[in-house]
Amino acid sequence: MLSAPRSVTRLIREFSKLPGIGAKTSERFVYFLLKHNRENIDQLTLALNELQRSVRQCDQCFSYSEKSTCDTCSDPTRDTSMLCVVAEPKDVFVFEHTGEFDGLYHVLGGVIDHVAGVGPQDLRLRELEERIKNLNIAEVILATNPDAEGELTAIYIAQQLEHLNVRMTRIARGLPTGADIQFADDLTLTNALKSRRDFKRP
Amino acid sequence: MLSAPRSVTRLIREFSKLPGIGAKTSERFVYFLLKHNRENIDQLTLALNELQRSVRQCDQCFSYSEKSTCDTCSDPTRDTSMLCVVAEPKDVFVFEHTGEFDGLYHVLGGVIDHVAGVGPQDLRLRELEERIKNLNIAEVILATNPDAEGELTAIYIAQQLEHLNVRMTRIARGLPTGADIQFADDLTLTNALKSRRDFKRP
Repeated sequence: MLSAPRSVTRLIREFSKLPGIGAKTSERFVYFLLKHNRENIDQLTLALNELQRSVRQCDQCFSYSEKSTCDTCSDPTRDTSMLCVVAEPKDVFVFEHTGEFDGLYHVLGGVIDHVAGVGPQDLRLRELEERIKNLNIAEVILATNPDAEGELTAIYIAQQLEHLNVRMTRIARGLPTGADIQFADDLTLTNALKSRRDFKRP
Repeated sequence: MLSAPRSVTRLIREFSKLPGIGAKTSERFVYFLLKHNRENIDQLTLALNELQRSVRQCDQCFSYSEKSTCDTCSDPTRDTSMLCVVAEPKDVFVFEHTGEFDGLYHVLGGVIDHVAGVGPQDLRLRELEERIKNLNIAEVILATNPDAEGELTAIYIAQQLEHLNVRMTRIARGLPTGADIQFADDLTLTNALKSRRDFKRP
């Protein structure tokens, strides 16, 4: 019985370590590369190499950067009195994409998640406290996800840092733009009602 | 506005060239590698490198192999009077997995597909004819998929090679093992009826 070449099964095994990718999809990737895009194998290899070589965590905010201190943290025009606390490095780029925030960021490196075994000690909370003190922060925006773990993490941080006497805010919960009220869940609608604002004529 | 590092967006672009992978899934792969599996980046890179370096097409059957002639074609115990014609290299390993066929294979490199712009001239038909003559083949099993393109390709080959006076067979169409008749489509049921066999007591 002839099996697929060893290097084929090896790459199938590697691809199937990616999230949501099973053996069948992984196999499809490998045969696709071999059949259609042989030159793509080199491009993918080079891109992986470059990622491994050049991406590190910013020594200030812990977001991903190709420099030891990221462009946000080293930008003298940013508002250093505002600190936006996010769970993951990629969240920084999502907020940056809006172009609406010109303060600094702090990446926790996750959220408190008892099921996944992540406790407060696994997050960058000591570093957060240090930065709030050193940077003379006036407002900390807790921008973790509006789900159970993100909410718990925000509440935990707010309690732990209460003694610093810094304004703590939480990103708003409500209906996403373009949503249909008919299909909104109860919790979203409840939060949208609770967080209602006075209507201002444009 | 701070964007994700260049090497991150570059790898996102490369991953999204894989079949069925959009920008969002690709982004998820990259951040997964950076967060959870930094050492996996090296393993994936090495696996890609090895694939590129060592996988070639067998000079006889055109399946994938790490040698110039694959283990099936160079195995003196295989039955060289039977030739199983498949569309893609990976089909060889699927048939081999059953352990039920000990003849040789021939990989066409695709099927006739007018929508995709693949004609007979794009398949290894000249090589097929040469091999049938040189190997003294007694039976050619046309094992392309039982779909429109596979069927058309099988019919085309059978017509083109009629003058060789070799037995041409087609893999059977019927109900897959474990199937529920209730959910079978008309064409499958029709074929299962047409190809019915005499019942033999075990």
